[in-house]
Amino acid sequence: MPHATDLTSPDTPFAVVDAAKVKRNIARLGEHVDALGVSLRPHVKTAKSVPVADLVHGGNPGPITVSTLAEAEVFADFGYTDILYAVGLDPHKLPRILALLQRGVVLTVLIDSVEQAQVISLAGQAIPTLIEVDCDGHRGGVLADDPVLPQIGGILAATGSLAGVLVHAGESYFDTTPAAQHAAAQHERDVAVAAADRLRAAGLTVQTVSAGSTPTAHAATDLSGVTELRAGNYVFFDLVMAGLGVCTIEDLALSVVVTVIGHRPERGWIVTDGGWMAMSRDRGTANQAVDQGYGLVTDLYGAAMPDLVMSSASQEHGILTTRSGNQPPELPIGTRLRILPNHACATGAQHSSYQVINLHTQGITIDAEWDRIRGW
Amino acid sequence: MPHATDLTSPDTPFAVVDAAKVKRNIARLGEHVDALGVSLRPHVKTAKSVPVADLVHGGNPGPITVSTLAEAEVFADFGYTDILYAVGLDPHKLPRILALLQRGVVLTVLIDSVEQAQVISLAGQAIPTLIEVDCDGHRGGVLADDPVLPQIGGILAATGSLAGVLVHAGESYFDTTPAAQHAAAQHERDVAVAAADRLRAAGLTVQTVSAGSTPTAHAATDLSGVTELRAGNYVFFDLVMAGLGVCTIEDLALSVVVTVIGHRPERGWIVTDGGWMAMSRDRGTANQAVDQGYGLVTDLYGAAMPDLVMSSASQEHGILTTRSGNQPPELPIGTRLRILPNHACATGAQHSSYQVINLHTQGITIDAEWDRIRGW
Repeated sequence: MPHATDLTSPDTPFAVVDAAKVKRNIARLGEHVDALGVSLRPHVKTAKSVPVADLVHGGNPGPITVSTLAEAEVFADFGYTDILYAVGLDPHKLPRILALLQRGVVLTVLIDSVEQAQVISLAGQAIPTLIEVDCDGHRGGVLADDPVLPQIGGILAATGSLAGVLVHAGESYFDTTPAAQHAAAQHERDVAVAAADRLRAAGLTVQTVSAGSTPTAHAATDLSGVTELRAGNYVFFDLVMAGLGVCTIEDLALSVVVTVIGHRPERGWIVTDGGWMAMSRDRGTANQAVDQGYGLVTDLYGAAMPDLVMSSASQEHGILTTRSGNQPPELPIGTRLRILPNHACATGAQHSSYQVINLHTQGITIDAEWDRIRGW
Repeated sequence: MPHATDLTSPDTPFAVVDAAKVKRNIARLGEHVDALGVSLRPHVKTAKSVPVADLVHGGNPGPITVSTLAEAEVFADFGYTDILYAVGLDPHKLPRILALLQRGVVLTVLIDSVEQAQVISLAGQAIPTLIEVDCDGHRGGVLADDPVLPQIGGILAATGSLAGVLVHAGESYFDTTPAAQHAAAQHERDVAVAAADRLRAAGLTVQTVSAGSTPTAHAATDLSGVTELRAGNYVFFDLVMAGLGVCTIEDLALSVVVTVIGHRPERGWIVTDGGWMAMSRDRGTANQAVDQGYGLVTDLYGAAMPDLVMSSASQEHGILTTRSGNQPPELPIGTRLRILPNHACATGAQHSSYQVINLHTQGITIDAEWDRIRGW
């Protein structure tokens, strides 16, 4: 067995990213998207890290989706010029949006109301805008057959701001079978195309038909009429996605290294220095078939210890217990372990950077540190 | 009604701290602790901000409790020299602990095992150490009547490292009546004193008897034999503490300003730009008598809208709904609101700084920005 020498070096807890797994996850979806004949616009809100997005686009800036203007501004600094800001427009943020356009970034914004369309129309210049269309009641969006859709489209088109439509099958995070995920992908595509057709029928030009979520992006088999696919979580994946069958546990690229700091054998507890501050409070697997607590434990080499989970958390303490109720393995104080997270987006956000690891025959090395973008 | 002019200025979401409420919360516990005749060692893990700790000690550095060495190092930079690091010792962190001692900081560490005591005894110098004693099965600690307690004490004393004992009534976060909180406080005190007496009976010198949690600190009426009280959350308080009756909603000093970015009237939803990235995933009130969702909504002036809660969250979206099932109030796109958090420690951690507000007859002003400490 190789020695994980480098992983014994930084003080715990810290976040590690397995670069080979990131590349494998990126290649898998990349091949799928190529076969479907659409372009990929990865959502960078999971990793929030320029080097990860660079990997998606073969080392060069390409189209991305962001969840904050802070992400847009940092990616623009790194040469990204085709950015979709996929959170509904807050009129107060218009100055920063205009500043990015001024810099030469094609920053596309998202709206789902006449009020927001009027804000766009009063901006004094064209702002590329997608209309959010709701396909599954997950969050925002207008319905594809709502008369307000062509009304919004008309207001946008009058100032040259109508770029197209966007659909996000957010409810697919609760589809637990391949058949259900495939149906969600098909429905997401159908709603997106129906909305675009509705606008075209009103005499409007629709260039962008944007769809996607990590589950539906992988399950889609027909994206005719869709111009671009979005997915974010897939670069790292997590226990929620593994629980949905979108990936396996072996695909999880993000984990948190923790240290054993105590034992309560009468309770079957191992206490670590990784609490919710290191993992987040996300309990996304709580309602899945297998509840993974706050995370699944692996050894320092990444081999899952499937009977051992992080079952509870306080701010800087994690409690590890066995599912079986058996005593946990003997892990002396000072032992380092890794915890696979429920939700990569939430766990990543607890850290300022990732230690990027590579597994060699001689051991694990930390070969880089990738910064994360923070704030709004 | 005053105008909250300044709160319309930073882009949302952002965290605000009401300085007058912080001062009131600090004064309330300060008076209680003075009356009990013990000293206060506030836990800075909630605010993680030097100016907040300064307020506790009348503007000067004083004794504090920290949850990370990063906190200890920053507070040491600001002149704090009496610091308790209240997470069980990871032997790997010894170099940073020794470096702080070298700087002249009296850094006290925490252990609960013979293994850790042996690490201390091999450090080559005295390291002030408290032995964690378990009073309620919450997390770590040895039992006060366990023979291992004097054994650990003896190992520490041999190198002059035994400072005393520490007890934390973590289960008091689930005591919902004043009587139960008072009983928890009394029990916490009794266990701490029993443990100290046990060590003294073994011929060991115990100087520090440290007890406390926010609920028990406020409920204690007899702390004879206890030398210092710890509490952290109380500087800000939160909905969990209000749900326990330790404070009222009006005492909550931390909130997050968000903006309305959409409506789904057919679902009774208001959509905001404050999701779990701004509030955290903490759902600490989920099992309380009143489930506050991801937070309780107030207007920009801080007046609670008790029928309106943030009932669900995605990364950068919050959904506000009414408890009654009635339609929510008409709040146009661009309206700013504040969300009171379940758990101040978790919500604070999502932000890099606090905008510090003061309410005047003319309006609310942002008078300062207080940085937060991050990482480990």
